[in-house]
Amino acid sequence: MEALDYHAEERRKAEFDVEEMKIVWAGSRQAYEISDRVARLVASDPVFRKDNRTMLSRKDLFKDTLRKAAHAWKRIIELRLSEEEASKLRFFVDQPVFTDLHWGMFIPAIKGQGNEEQQQKWLPMAYKMQIIGCYAQTELGHGSNVQGLETTATFDPETDEFVIHSPTLTSSKWWPGGLGKVSTHALVYARLITDGQDHGVHGFIVQLRSLDDHLPLPGITVGDIGMKFGSGAYNSMDNGVLRFDHVRIPRDQMLMGVSQVTREGKFMQSDVPRQLVYGTMVYVRQKIVADASCALSRAVCIATRYSAVRRQFGSHNGGPETQVIDYKTQQSRLFPLLASAYAFRFVGEWLKWLYTDVTRRLEANDFSTLPEVHACTAGLKSVTTSATADAIEECRKLCGGHGYLSSSGLPELFAVYVPACTYEGDNVVLLLQVSRFLMKTVSQLGSGKKPVGTIAYMGRSEHLLQCRCEVERAEDWLKPNVILDAFEARAARMSVTCAKNLNNFPNQEEGFAQLATDLAEAAVAHVQLIIVSKFIEKLHQDIPGKGVKRQLEILFNVYALSLLHKHLGDFVTSGCITPKQGALANEQLRLLYSQVRPNAIALVDAFNYTDHYLGSVLGRYDGNVYPKLYEEAWKDPLNETVVPDGYHDYIRPILKQHIRVARL
Amino acid sequence: MEALDYHAEERRKAEFDVEEMKIVWAGSRQAYEISDRVARLVASDPVFRKDNRTMLSRKDLFKDTLRKAAHAWKRIIELRLSEEEASKLRFFVDQPVFTDLHWGMFIPAIKGQGNEEQQQKWLPMAYKMQIIGCYAQTELGHGSNVQGLETTATFDPETDEFVIHSPTLTSSKWWPGGLGKVSTHALVYARLITDGQDHGVHGFIVQLRSLDDHLPLPGITVGDIGMKFGSGAYNSMDNGVLRFDHVRIPRDQMLMGVSQVTREGKFMQSDVPRQLVYGTMVYVRQKIVADASCALSRAVCIATRYSAVRRQFGSHNGGPETQVIDYKTQQSRLFPLLASAYAFRFVGEWLKWLYTDVTRRLEANDFSTLPEVHACTAGLKSVTTSATADAIEECRKLCGGHGYLSSSGLPELFAVYVPACTYEGDNVVLLLQVSRFLMKTVSQLGSGKKPVGTIAYMGRSEHLLQCRCEVERAEDWLKPNVILDAFEARAARMSVTCAKNLNNFPNQEEGFAQLATDLAEAAVAHVQLIIVSKFIEKLHQDIPGKGVKRQLEILFNVYALSLLHKHLGDFVTSGCITPKQGALANEQLRLLYSQVRPNAIALVDAFNYTDHYLGSVLGRYDGNVYPKLYEEAWKDPLNETVVPDGYHDYIRPILKQHIRVARL
Repeated sequence: MEALDYHAEERRKAEFDVEEMKIVWAGSRQAYEISDRVARLVASDPVFRKDNRTMLSRKDLFKDTLRKAAHAWKRIIELRLSEEEASKLRFFVDQPVFTDLHWGMFIPAIKGQGNEEQQQKWLPMAYKMQIIGCYAQTELGHGSNVQGLETTATFDPETDEFVIHSPTLTSSKWWPGGLGKVSTHALVYARLITDGQDHGVHGFIVQLRSLDDHLPLPGITVGDIGMKFGSGAYNSMDNGVLRFDHVRIPRDQMLMGVSQVTREGKFMQSDVPRQLVYGTMVYVRQKIVADASCALSRAVCIATRYSAVRRQFGSHNGGPETQVIDYKTQQSRLFPLLASAYAFRFVGEWLKWLYTDVTRRLEANDFSTLPEVHACTAGLKSVTTSATADAIEECRKLCGGHGYLSSSGLPELFAVYVPACTYEGDNVVLLLQVSRFLMKTVSQLGSGKKPVGTIAYMGRSEHLLQCRCEVERAEDWLKPNVILDAFEARAARMSVTCAKNLNNFPNQEEGFAQLATDLAEAAVAHVQLIIVSKFIEKLHQDIPGKGVKRQLEILFNVYALSLLHKHLGDFVTSGCITPKQGALANEQLRLLYSQVRPNAIALVDAFNYTDHYLGSVLGRYDGNVYPKLYEEAWKDPLNETVVPDGYHDYIRPILKQHIRVARL
Repeated sequence: MEALDYHAEERRKAEFDVEEMKIVWAGSRQAYEISDRVARLVASDPVFRKDNRTMLSRKDLFKDTLRKAAHAWKRIIELRLSEEEASKLRFFVDQPVFTDLHWGMFIPAIKGQGNEEQQQKWLPMAYKMQIIGCYAQTELGHGSNVQGLETTATFDPETDEFVIHSPTLTSSKWWPGGLGKVSTHALVYARLITDGQDHGVHGFIVQLRSLDDHLPLPGITVGDIGMKFGSGAYNSMDNGVLRFDHVRIPRDQMLMGVSQVTREGKFMQSDVPRQLVYGTMVYVRQKIVADASCALSRAVCIATRYSAVRRQFGSHNGGPETQVIDYKTQQSRLFPLLASAYAFRFVGEWLKWLYTDVTRRLEANDFSTLPEVHACTAGLKSVTTSATADAIEECRKLCGGHGYLSSSGLPELFAVYVPACTYEGDNVVLLLQVSRFLMKTVSQLGSGKKPVGTIAYMGRSEHLLQCRCEVERAEDWLKPNVILDAFEARAARMSVTCAKNLNNFPNQEEGFAQLATDLAEAAVAHVQLIIVSKFIEKLHQDIPGKGVKRQLEILFNVYALSLLHKHLGDFVTSGCITPKQGALANEQLRLLYSQVRPNAIALVDAFNYTDHYLGSVLGRYDGNVYPKLYEEAWKDPLNETVVPDGYHDYIRPILKQHIRVARL
């Protein structure tokens, strides 16, 4: 018997080899195979079921999460999974949990900031999960500004210990994931004070709970900070609050990879350059960009499949209504997001390479690329996470009313994703960091210092400030070089204009404060250029498979031209293109949508997501949406009884009341 | 003892009479007094407590909602509240519940579509809530396209009854609020079939449940459709699913105000004009616009107050950090939303007037303004709800990490608000309706038919297509007429361009399909012009109170110029303004933000929201945020025990495991 597939016709229409595209999406055949195998492993395991998640109370959800984490760990050991496979497994379990922080922050920070001895002492325990750690940096009153943290670590030379203390309410550690209920240890960031002198913020390994009975150690107050956005979503995580009342730890629990405190209480900077810390930051942020392409592609997959199932209006002679994916309004909202998913995927892949490159350079004491790398990763983190958060909500709206149901998967995906705009650097703060780098680059243009890497185009700014876009017909916009020129010109002109305007202010800082919004917009232009240019580089690679490259070319054009349309004001006011050329781009965009249309379902199939991972009735691979929606509805706890709890107390008395006097 | 007020200094800085502004916001002194009194009534009643709402399981939340509804009804009767007061009370209880549909849809529809007899029979029961009704229109497979509904109502002349039936799974009624667990009756929209002929969709009053024991009547399958976006939020509502298996109702339960079926089964259109139905639509949509200004102002109030509490960076010499509201990036995101709240409030007020005007005209058989009124309400519904949904999420982000906590109130506000973008007309579908009206207007320009009302400016399109903006200095942008001219020119030019481009297609329908995105953008331009012009009309009114009018002028300029900046591409490419003038507008905007800054707290105080209604620790009137956040955290169910449920089963075994072999 053939399996039911309402999308079969859509799949037949595809003009490219979807199996080859799966490999392009995954990055390599090996990555594809691992991902495919682990995803199926998770999907077929009943412990990892998640379709009832949004109905669970906080306590039940949390217990369910602990169960999954324990089971995941058991499977990882049993199957002797590699680190890459283990991390994939946790990814596909798709439920935020303390192990994310243990593996993603606690261990990398000890690796990056601990000295050799510390690594040898702590890492083996952490790898075996004999201790569970979290990363306790932000405080109730202090988020973005790490230098403003209030927690203190005062050296007591008498006992050779640090005294960790929370001097104020606002110094309470607040937000760290895994802290509230699970972690036995925390990396605590605190102001180092020796001999009455404040040496700024450093990291300390602090045990929080007894390894025997899990009770908090003396002087430690710890708990969960309460419900967060959405049902299910991040409520599976015990983001925590933590206060210290003069808690003592041995001196060797300060992370001493970069700075040290001697037995005498002398503070010393190590000869290891401080810039090494940036390596960790690049690592974390490239991971965030990769996650953005996952979350975005997941939402797009759901919205695209359901847009092919859903029909509204346009029935002719009593025939079926039109599939909503055939409407231009739907295409012009959906297809740029589909294209963005691919664009973010490729720039993420490149960032991964950049991380290895910068690591190699740092090891060779070459710090020359650091400012550029830092600006580039900060900017990409900001732009891709903001775009993804907006896109998930847009995909939800593109599913009409049913996108509002938890069973569509989109509300929870949105709620669980949006913190990415805030954690690891608030997106606006990051853009301002990028713009500072841009202004510095512009100011050094005359100095003979040649901009490199993603900022190299600034070296040609004289040309870019004058060049004219040569588009005369709509199809001229299909040329990657034409697009690249326009994006380079826009980015360069916006930066140079900002730099000029800064000169109108009495001092640099006042100018930065007043022009912050313009500066942030210039940073966005720079980052979008990076994404566009990395997509072009991808197209220059050898891409096998029938029609695969052609599809990527179309998606590239959709991505670039839809950005151009969205930011038309930038392009036209800076004189990079004329209004007429803008209209031609728009015209070309419409034609491109028609080219995407027959391939849309296959393009989201290429993400190779299981129905388990998607977690969406609307996004089901087989398109059998309505019977399943109907089935899901009856599972709600409210449907356990026909007459609702509360009827006798609150409904019946209303219906049976004899109202004599009322003004209504 | 003086009450704690961290915002006292901010309040002292205000340059206008906030008490007078409260009256401007409320619309009149009387409206202010009612609103103020009822809000306090609700806030002081422990039954209406809602701070634990997001922690409740679905069943507990639903029961809590029933309890509140019963208590609200009790208070309404006891206090002999007027209809306006009763509706305010339900508004401030702030928890979606079946009575919203009973009062907001069931009763108005019987009033609007029932004949005199039907009104006399059903309304008294409904007013006394001896029956509870809902509005069952949308189906599992059919939302926006009402004409595509599948449920049938077949007339049986033998018994003088209609047989209501759900012929397919997709014909299941789906979404109606209050349907799932509570309503005893429903207004069911179904295809009327007499003598084998389909007469399209009509409304029928159908009893669903026994008034004795609340059990569904024979042939009725009814239940809740399951969890929706967010925790708390709309999950208090029993949105329902409903199937009919040949359910019989008497003939006189078809709503016969507009069409009738005779005893013989003959279908007849009444002499009452069909257009009357539009009156109800205008009523419902003007209410949605009013609700938008409430939701938006609520989010803005929270974000503004917390932006004055929160400090990040910029500490000088160890002093306190800078209030985030002082950053231009924060101002440029927040203040346009503050201005939008006022703009939407005023256009909503005007829509209320428009509704009474159109009602008066309809009663006098004057249908001349209907198309314009319809386009205008549809467009305003679309633009204000989309902007509000985006703004709530932006306000959440403006609160940094803490905006992600349920106790900030913003996640639930977002989740409960977003359906407004979909219900009562999908926002994109509505824009396309507006654009059809615009295209018709353009096509009739030569015919001598003079456009009236909000579209009157099209009568001057010849001038508008050629006029040049005369701004030379930034302050020229402060003149309302300069702004109005630019917005009129932009709207007219975009419509005329669309009309021209439509001619390039072989037929009108193909053109509409292909250019849908451009048409929707033209519609947005038209609607934004309406909002801008109604704000200007408001400024022409007599507005008492020290400095009040001045503040509104500033907010008007912020609203209009921030829109201009956002849509700069439209303004510049259509040649309405030059890039240089766009830059001047931006410059002026920055100065305006500085003028808003000292008044920001007072401007949100003017909304007069109680802490109960705001439901946000971050938005507290007294600004005492951090101690309260800390306090709230401990209320989470997870904090009932120090060692979490699940420790012995799932955490301890991990910590105590002896791992011999693992690849990690």
